[in-house]
Order: sequence, then C-alpha cells, then structure tokens
Amino acid sequence: MAISLNLLQLHGNPSLPKFPNSNWLRPAVYFRAPARATVVMSQITPSYWAAINEDIDDHLRRVIIAKDPPAVYEPLGHFVFSAPRNSAAAMCIAACELVGGHRDQAMAAATALQLIYAATYTREYPPLTARGISNAAVVDRVYGPNIQLLTGVGIAPIGFEILAGSCDLSESGSERVRRVMVEMARAMGSEGWIGGQFKELEEVTAAEEVIEMTEGELHARGGACGAILGGGSEEEIEKMRKYGRIVGMVKGLSKKVFGGKENERKREKIKELKALAFKELEGFKGQKVDQMCNFFDFEGL
Amino acid sequence: MAISLNLLQLHGNPSLPKFPNSNWLRPAVYFRAPARATVVMSQITPSYWAAINEDIDDHLRRVIIAKDPPAVYEPLGHFVFSAPRNSAAAMCIAACELVGGHRDQAMAAATALQLIYAATYTREYPPLTARGISNAAVVDRVYGPNIQLLTGVGIAPIGFEILAGSCDLSESGSERVRRVMVEMARAMGSEGWIGGQFKELEEVTAAEEVIEMTEGELHARGGACGAILGGGSEEEIEKMRKYGRIVGMVKGLSKKVFGGKENERKREKIKELKALAFKELEGFKGQKVDQMCNFFDFEGL
Repeated sequence: MAISLNLLQLHGNPSLPKFPNSNWLRPAVYFRAPARATVVMSQITPSYWAAINEDIDDHLRRVIIAKDPPAVYEPLGHFVFSAPRNSAAAMCIAACELVGGHRDQAMAAATALQLIYAATYTREYPPLTARGISNAAVVDRVYGPNIQLLTGVGIAPIGFEILAGSCDLSESGSERVRRVMVEMARAMGSEGWIGGQFKELEEVTAAEEVIEMTEGELHARGGACGAILGGGSEEEIEKMRKYGRIVGMVKGLSKKVFGGKENERKREKIKELKALAFKELEGFKGQKVDQMCNFFDFEGL
Repeated sequence: MAISLNLLQLHGNPSLPKFPNSNWLRPAVYFRAPARATVVMSQITPSYWAAINEDIDDHLRRVIIAKDPPAVYEPLGHFVFSAPRNSAAAMCIAACELVGGHRDQAMAAATALQLIYAATYTREYPPLTARGISNAAVVDRVYGPNIQLLTGVGIAPIGFEILAGSCDLSESGSERVRRVMVEMARAMGSEGWIGGQFKELEEVTAAEEVIEMTEGELHARGGACGAILGGGSEEEIEKMRKYGRIVGMVKGLSKKVFGGKENERKREKIKELKALAFKELEGFKGQKVDQMCNFFDFEGL
C-alpha cells in the first residue's frame, strides 16, 4: 500500500469516530476530518487527482476554522467535513490548469463548490426535506433536525464569502470572480441543484434528468469556473462546461443504483457519455489533457 | 386619502387573495403582489421612502419573472412576493444616495437584501425549523413544507446572482460588487441571520441579542453596501454601517411584543438608540440627511 505518513496524518485515522474531535472546540485549531479518509486510503498511488483533492481539503481546513460560539461552529465543522467529497471541485482546479492557469487561482472557487455540495448534503438529512420522507428513525443523528437544517442553510454563504474575498483585486481578478459568482449561484439555485430537487419531487421524472440538473450542472459550472479563473478563452470555457457536465452525469449515474435491465442501460449510457466527453478535450494540448482524460478512472473522485 | 391610481395598480387590489394570480403561470408576465399592498395604502402621502419602496418592488418584479417549469417558479413567486418588505433594502438605497451615488447603483443590492430576507422568512414556516416547533396545524399553508423549504433555500442564490450580474463592468464597479457580496454573505450566514437563529435556540439568550444579529446586521450591511456602491469614503461606509445597525435594532425591537415592564424598557431602549443613531449622521450634508432622519418615522418601512 502506497500511503505516506503525511497522507495518513492529513486525512486522519479511519478508526476515529465520525464526530468532530475535541480540537474543534478550541478556537483557531483546525478540524481534522476522518469521514473521507477511506477515499484516499485506497490502493492507488497518489496521483494528480489525489494531490488536487489534498490541496482542496487543506484549503477547506484553513478557511473553516473553529470559532466561538461552539453552538454554531461545532455543527458547522461537523457537517462540512463529514459531507462526501464532490469531484466538481477537482474539475474546477483541473480546468483552470488545463487552460494554463495556476491552481491557486481556482482554489477558492473549488472550495466554494465543495461547500455548496456540503450544504445540499446537510439539508438532505432532516425529516421533511425534498423527499418529504421522515427518515428520523434510520439516520444516525448527531444534532437535532433544526440544528442540521440551519447549518445546511448557513454553509452556502460561506462559499460565496470565500469566493468574493479571494481575488487578487486586479481588474481582471474582480471581473472573473464576479462572473464565477453568477455561475455558482446558478449551480445552487433553481437552474441547478434546487431545480433538480424539485424535479425529483415529480414522480414521472427520469433519474437522468435529476442527475443532469444536480451533479451535471455542478460539474459543468466547476469546469467553466476553472477555465474562467485560469484565463481561458470563451471557447475553452464552453468546452470545459460541456466536459464538466458529462463528467458530472457519469459520476451521478455511477453512484445511482438501478435494478436489472436499467443497470445495463446505465452502463451503456456511461460508455456513450465518455465518448462524447473526450471530443470536448480535442484542441487542448500538453500533459494535462491526459490527466483530464483520467478523471473518470480515478476512484478517489 | 392621497393614493394615485398608479400606486393602486402597482400594488394590486387588497381584496385579492394572497395567492399568485393566473398571470404567474404565463412566462414573462410579471407577478403582481397583493400581500404588501396595505403598507403603501396607508394615509401617508407618498414620500421619499415610499418612492424607494416602489422602485425596489418594481425591480423585484422585473427580475423575478414567471418561467417554466411552474412547479418551481410558481412557489418561488408566491414566497418572494408574499414575504413582508424589509427596510434594510431601503436603507441600502438611501445610504447610496446620501454619499452622492445614484439610486440605480444600489438597486441590485437592495433587491438582493429583500430576497435574503424573503428566504429566511420562507424557511421559518415549515415545521421543524429553527424553533423546532411544529406549527403545521396553525399556519395557513399553500404548499407542502418540502416545497416551502426547498423554495426558501433556492431564493437566496437569486440575490447573489442578481448582484453579481449587476455591475457596470468598470474596474471600480466589479470591485465594489465583489466587496458587497462579502457583506451580503456575512449578513446571511453565521455572523448574521443564521447566527441569530442559532442564538434564539438557546433559552438564555436575550431578545436584543437575537435582534442585533438578525435585523441589526441586515440593516448594517444594507447601509454599508449602499455607501460602498455609491462611492462613499471608508469613513462614510462605517457611519452608514453603524446607522444601519441601530435602525435595524429599532425596527426589530418595535416589531417584538414584550409583556408588562419589558415593554417600558423597550420604549426606553428605542429612545436611547435613536439618539445614538443621529450622531452617526453628523458630517453628512444636504436634504438627504433630513430624509435619513425620517427613517424611523415612516410607517411603510
């Protein structure tokens, strides 16, 4: 197993419980997240994508710090760090680098994408959410549904704050960030995740439609935002948006469990989507293109 | 009664039911909001503040339009337009004009503030919100709690989108908007409204503390954002922030119903706050200062 001590320290000990450790209560001590440890602990040698994930986690730990009062920041830390990693964040960094930008230019946006996802994930659990199903009896709860709901709502503005506070204050910096904020707001709102959740309420909606509006849209915006922040051309931005959307759909479909024949259809659809995706990478040059192609295969994403 | 036909048309007929009218279902037809009609229909002659409110309502109707699918945009319109008006939006416009800016420069931010408030208001109703109280039996519901909750969450990103998409694309325009986005995110999040709601969950918290974090903070950011967008100096921005905070506290305290002796203390506190507020207006010149002083007295705010 190719796991360095460094990685082990960074991602915590998987035997730790899924609760914030006591450090969380001490102001300005960063929270270590045990919940996502297994993802990097797989047998894959740390790669381009693992390094991106690590940088995003690191940035998240720097910006989401324990503050007073603990009644607010303890559940905040818990829910931010126990939400699964969403690969739209890595897509954002990779798209920035693909168009010739530096990783740091997209780091705040990538962190904001992960926070937007963590917010939706946190809001999913309480009884009486989108599904209208009370699953209070089956879900292991750390906090009451009122705390969980409030925290879920409170996570998203942090993403906007980090993003708005991130730029280099040059003319192009402010303008790019402003543009990225519009993209993020749409990924979150009724054209994106919330719209997808509304669709899910309709009984006749196909799972694919929901996945396109949620994971598809989040990854599409991730790709576009990365390309915007890395200084890509309009054509490159749109290619990264399309590539992102397809990647998001593949990721969403892969996670979704279908029964019988539907599963066969899902595998076909994924194959079809991958072929479409690679067409969007035509015209880009350099080593980064190969890495972008590997997006689908790295299981840590 | 000094009500022009124009005003009557703009604010709808108060005898209409509190539901979206059928126009809402037709794309690109603006929604007319009956719910807030009584506020402007009072016996006060339309003033500086009434005109500001009218402009904000008008802008809101231009940006929140009926679109497909109705399953998403019908509840969205309903909740945006039936939420009470929050005076932090008017504070934003007035602060912009006080520092020499034009109303249009602050209009998107004012609209975003009203949307942030409408979002919190919408999220308050479902059972299992901040208070943890199920009031399903007493609240008149138009939509199920899952729809109401999702809509509440979906309203806030629209505010960010409008704001981010609003600026004149000049260097100072982008930079001011970027700065305003940070203020807005904080007004919404754990340093603002959400933080106040968390405080409210603690039984020992004084009502004043909650009001300072919710209404106080929203109006403080309203004042600061208006001054930023109007091109005010740092000193002016901070004065408008302080003035806004006090106005917000007065507004919040006025709405809050206390019993017996507490009510007497509330009146004293409001008197004290007003005296403090007027000190923040020292140094400003022109007719707009008088109007700003009248903020407390116009009942439409």
